[in-house]
Amino acid sequence: MTGKTNWDQYHEYEGLDKILTAQKMRSAEEGNPVHDEMLFIIFHQVYELWFKQILFELDDIQRRFSSNVVDDRDMQPILTYLGRIEKIFRNLVGMMDVLETMPPQSFLDFRRYLGTASGFQSWQFRLIELRLGLRREDRIPVFGGEFDEDLRAESRKAFNDAEGSASLYDQIDTWLSRTPFVDWQDYKFTEQYRQAVHNMLDQSAQHGVSADDITRGKAKFESIFDADKHDQAIKDGLWRMSAPALQAALFITIYREEPVLQGPYRLLQHIIDVDALIAQWRYRHALLVQRMVGMGAGTGGSSGYNYLMDTVQKHRIFNDLFSLSSYIIPSDALPALPQQLKDTMTYGYTKAA
Amino acid sequence: MTGKTNWDQYHEYEGLDKILTAQKMRSAEEGNPVHDEMLFIIFHQVYELWFKQILFELDDIQRRFSSNVVDDRDMQPILTYLGRIEKIFRNLVGMMDVLETMPPQSFLDFRRYLGTASGFQSWQFRLIELRLGLRREDRIPVFGGEFDEDLRAESRKAFNDAEGSASLYDQIDTWLSRTPFVDWQDYKFTEQYRQAVHNMLDQSAQHGVSADDITRGKAKFESIFDADKHDQAIKDGLWRMSAPALQAALFITIYREEPVLQGPYRLLQHIIDVDALIAQWRYRHALLVQRMVGMGAGTGGSSGYNYLMDTVQKHRIFNDLFSLSSYIIPSDALPALPQQLKDTMTYGYTKAA
Amino acid sequence: MTGKTNWDQYHEYEGLDKILTAQKMRSAEEGNPVHDEMLFIIFHQVYELWFKQILFELDDIQRRFSSNVVDDRDMQPILTYLGRIEKIFRNLVGMMDVLETMPPQSFLDFRRYLGTASGFQSWQFRLIELRLGLRREDRIPVFGGEFDEDLRAESRKAFNDAEGSASLYDQIDTWLSRTPFVDWQDYKFTEQYRQAVHNMLDQSAQHGVSADDITRGKAKFESIFDADKHDQAIKDGLWRMSAPALQAALFITIYREEPVLQGPYRLLQHIIDVDALIAQWRYRHALLVQRMVGMGAGTGGSSGYNYLMDTVQKHRIFNDLFSLSSYIIPSDALPALPQQLKDTMTYGYTKAA
Amino acid sequence: MTGKTNWDQYHEYEGLDKILTAQKMRSAEEGNPVHDEMLFIIFHQVYELWFKQILFELDDIQRRFSSNVVDDRDMQPILTYLGRIEKIFRNLVGMMDVLETMPPQSFLDFRRYLGTASGFQSWQFRLIELRLGLRREDRIPVFGGEFDEDLRAESRKAFNDAEGSASLYDQIDTWLSRTPFVDWQDYKFTEQYRQAVHNMLDQSAQHGVSADDITRGKAKFESIFDADKHDQAIKDGLWRMSAPALQAALFITIYREEPVLQGPYRLLQHIIDVDALIAQWRYRHALLVQRMVGMGAGTGGSSGYNYLMDTVQKHRIFNDLFSLSSYIIPSDALPALPQQLKDTMTYGYTKAA
Repeated sequence: MTGKTNWDQYHEYEGLDKILTAQKMRSAEEGNPVHDEMLFIIFHQVYELWFKQILFELDDIQRRFSSNVVDDRDMQPILTYLGRIEKIFRNLVGMMDVLETMPPQSFLDFRRYLGTASGFQSWQFRLIELRLGLRREDRIPVFGGEFDEDLRAESRKAFNDAEGSASLYDQIDTWLSRTPFVDWQDYKFTEQYRQAVHNMLDQSAQHGVSADDITRGKAKFESIFDADKHDQAIKDGLWRMSAPALQAALFITIYREEPVLQGPYRLLQHIIDVDALIAQWRYRHALLVQRMVGMGAGTGGSSGYNYLMDTVQKHRIFNDLFSLSSYIIPSDALPALPQQLKDTMTYGYTKAA
Repeated sequence: MTGKTNWDQYHEYEGLDKILTAQKMRSAEEGNPVHDEMLFIIFHQVYELWFKQILFELDDIQRRFSSNVVDDRDMQPILTYLGRIEKIFRNLVGMMDVLETMPPQSFLDFRRYLGTASGFQSWQFRLIELRLGLRREDRIPVFGGEFDEDLRAESRKAFNDAEGSASLYDQIDTWLSRTPFVDWQDYKFTEQYRQAVHNMLDQSAQHGVSADDITRGKAKFESIFDADKHDQAIKDGLWRMSAPALQAALFITIYREEPVLQGPYRLLQHIIDVDALIAQWRYRHALLVQRMVGMGAGTGGSSGYNYLMDTVQKHRIFNDLFSLSSYIIPSDALPALPQQLKDTMTYGYTKAA
Repeated sequence: MTGKTNWDQYHEYEGLDKILTAQKMRSAEEGNPVHDEMLFIIFHQVYELWFKQILFELDDIQRRFSSNVVDDRDMQPILTYLGRIEKIFRNLVGMMDVLETMPPQSFLDFRRYLGTASGFQSWQFRLIELRLGLRREDRIPVFGGEFDEDLRAESRKAFNDAEGSASLYDQIDTWLSRTPFVDWQDYKFTEQYRQAVHNMLDQSAQHGVSADDITRGKAKFESIFDADKHDQAIKDGLWRMSAPALQAALFITIYREEPVLQGPYRLLQHIIDVDALIAQWRYRHALLVQRMVGMGAGTGGSSGYNYLMDTVQKHRIFNDLFSLSSYIIPSDALPALPQQLKDTMTYGYTKAA
Repeated sequence: MTGKTNWDQYHEYEGLDKILTAQKMRSAEEGNPVHDEMLFIIFHQVYELWFKQILFELDDIQRRFSSNVVDDRDMQPILTYLGRIEKIFRNLVGMMDVLETMPPQSFLDFRRYLGTASGFQSWQFRLIELRLGLRREDRIPVFGGEFDEDLRAESRKAFNDAEGSASLYDQIDTWLSRTPFVDWQDYKFTEQYRQAVHNMLDQSAQHGVSADDITRGKAKFESIFDADKHDQAIKDGLWRMSAPALQAALFITIYREEPVLQGPYRLLQHIIDVDALIAQWRYRHALLVQRMVGMGAGTGGSSGYNYLMDTVQKHRIFNDLFSLSSYIIPSDALPALPQQLKDTMTYGYTKAA
């Protein structure tokens, strides 16, 4: 980079020729400049930059998960990048504060120039949803249409690639299902745990819990432990994740202090954090839309607000990891791990010592 | 305070003898201390302190609004205190991050000691709802019961007082309805605005809008302007606020730059901000509950999560102020204000000059 | 925009052809891709977008302040845009969380490709400083050089324009100095206030305050009230703002509830908020640099961290508005305003009524 | 808890009889109620509650670190509790927004009733500083006095206990120093690393780096590697941490992907995060004080603001961990780990397989 000033180098390095000239206010072009249109443009450009960053992180995370065996050393960068995605979404949620300084009147004044362009047309965000694991059939239709019709060619390819390969959801399911410790030599986690649940529930009879409730309690756990019951629960829409994955997630959650499980437990926490942050972002978006254009009160019609509120509840991807919390039992009722299994779940140096 | 050290003075001033001795871990008392119970206790104590502060601010705000005529000088403290309530709720939303560090397993381990106590039993929060204007009949039943049955005597009195007097919602409605400029000498805002809407819609015929749509467009505005249509809309649950209040809020929103309207516009913005923040707080609470105890997946039962999600959508109080955004028309279609009216809406000194 | 899909329209409207292709990882170009370089690039691109937005808001705010008389109706958009700048800086402070997810090792691995480019070379940020009112002579030298040497031509022009016209600081000083109520007909605020200060201090003798302290107390206020003392204080670097501006700012602060002062008081608050947020942003930047590259411990050399810490303390622009807090006296010692002055400071309609 | 309503149970459980009756406004007691005094009281009570929580977390963390060997399973709760302390400090920083809504005039109006009580007298905060490792001799004197003179008896005991035992700083130093892998059988990390540094620097001669700079570069690293040089650096105030601890921290930072180092690396990150957040909190506190009572401009006197700004820079505890960033070398220059060492740093199950 010789011969160039520091300023030139920074300018070129950051691509500022492109970045700082990409704002065209339609209202100004049409001779009626509306001040706040600039904010609207730049706000969404910032979004798109962060979405690109999130996709870039997902590329790396998903590449690491695509191995037959995820290297334990990969857990470190995977957790770092997931933590980064979490921080980015946290920032995206907070950014809404900036756009909310726009008076609805101002939005109305330049809205006519937007054509049909709107924040709903971010293909990068929809690609993030696809890559994370939101399925086509689980989507709320966008104003009656498919979420991806008439896509631009480059986006179409990215969507096809995403749908043609494993989503992060799929990868997590596969990775969890391979957890070796759940079924280790003579140790069968599901048998141990089922027994512990039964013991606990049986003892609750002494505290006045009815036989029916105890039976129901036991049955509930079978939707994780029994393959047929689990299949039925999936058909009923109560679970999405495979039974082996759920069992492993439960095992990891319960025995999270074992060295080999500390990373996987954090991974599950990060997934839960990201899922919850996307949900918060959707909700902030719904509130913003309500503030800017109302919610159709007085008209009875459907609206952007209603669509977004539906996605808040229905476009969650990792609900199953939240639901697992109702399958934990108190610490004093948990079955102990065999010492041999514990040994294999800790570091090599402790055995050497 | 002579004779006391600085430390004593601070300690006494802040009531630390009470504050720092008010934490009794039931799990410890029962011989089975669970570390995270302390966080659960202190977290809710912080909530209750902030709720007390919010009620204290509402006392002052509502006292000022209870006059027949709100002194223009009162606008300054009212806005300051509303801004403060907003910052407090913003903090309450962020605080969820702290409680989310608690593993669901830990919660389960001390949950048995809570009895039926839960965050749902904050009478101060329900009093805030009452004081803001959430009506008894608009509430989602809490697990089948009335929201205030079996209240403690002191809370009962506060609830009765709140229900026996005007809520902030009522006060805002009354205060808006008294806005003198909406109907000033010969000037009638509703007539001017209706005419502007009709002009705008009639012109849209040239851009291919159908006659039916134009008729529907005109009819929509009558739910604000026509007393009978508005009554019907209230019965249909489409509006809650009185027609004169809605008209004034619309007037303030449109002509927000006139000096006498700058404060009232900010007031409406603060109300909208607080309403949206409470909604976000409810949503974060729902996500926290889902994370800690699941959402009943696999059981089909109703749950705390579902109750909270219902309140997110239904326990909004100031929806009407959000909805007004769909009654604004573009700046170039707005009727101009008569100069005489503008003069009376500005400061005395400009006329003197 | 006919014939184009929604996706096309959004893509073109947001300039995504430029925005999403402006990332060139030098490490990749040199055959040694370092994953985290993408974050570094995009992070600064987001910064530059927000800086552009801030400058765009300043354009509008400064245009309104450039009139001989600022229209009272302009107060509304000015406050809105200042509030927006505040929210943007709040977001910039929070964004540091994202970059802090980058391990120092990763930064080191692509740092060699940056040449001399660094965040210190954001001409937009320096232009913001200039536009707000940071003077050339008050700047800490950047590693021994002038802050603007070797600027690119377009930046040079913007810097020259900014230095050749009034900064926001200058405009605020001028605008404050013109406040008519400080010297209104027979009313002289400085005389009234000086008398009130003297009364208060004289009475403090009864509570054991020494004559010397009382004399010193009175003298302190003369640096605002007495032209010569104020000139000396400016030479001593104790004040920057003109005496009439300081007097008006004090007047506004004290009588902030008078309708005509409510907007100006908010303006002062916004300026203070923005100044404090920029300071926080500088401090977060310093902490980030310390985390990424250390602070020269063990070497004794100067460093980016030290430079940034110096700017945290020295590059403040509106310190005087913070300092005014030590010139307020208790409410019960404040002189009352004449009724005639109060009348002129309220709205026209109250006189009409 | 039988016979009690849910409300009673929550009320008792949360100690609300104490919490909600601990606010005594002195201004009201003296017949001159100042509204904002309530905010001042409650704000600090919330602080004290969170400080109690932080101390409670430190109790647990420090108990785990007090073992001769920290159990690898303890890393999980230690990291959880450190993460929680981080979230609490993040919340404390954000809380400043609430207190900043108080006009300086209001503060002045009740400040006279505070006596000498001020936020500077939080013994819990100073105890947190002690427990983390801020040394008596490193403290800025508080207005000329010792930071702990005239302490109340209970606080005195807590301070003595803290000073009489290892601080978290001490414990981290000890724990790092025990890291077995730095000196493992034939492997000597410092020798490997010194060689790598020398190789890297020697090669830099080809890129025009001068012999003097290369010599200086090599010498810099000796302050970590050479015991005498390190002793001198400690005397010069350039380092505080022991050489073995610094070496281990460097080892962990560099080889953070090895399974056994993933937890320790996160631990170092958490410590850095907490240190930086406390620094931010101090800085926000300084800005708040400047806003509320000025900074002595025009008086030349020292002030609360100046004291606080001094603590921002001088009361850092874990600076050494930040400084380590300037001792990292690029990934391609790092010495590889022997396979045997890598094996011992991974999980037992991988060897079994």
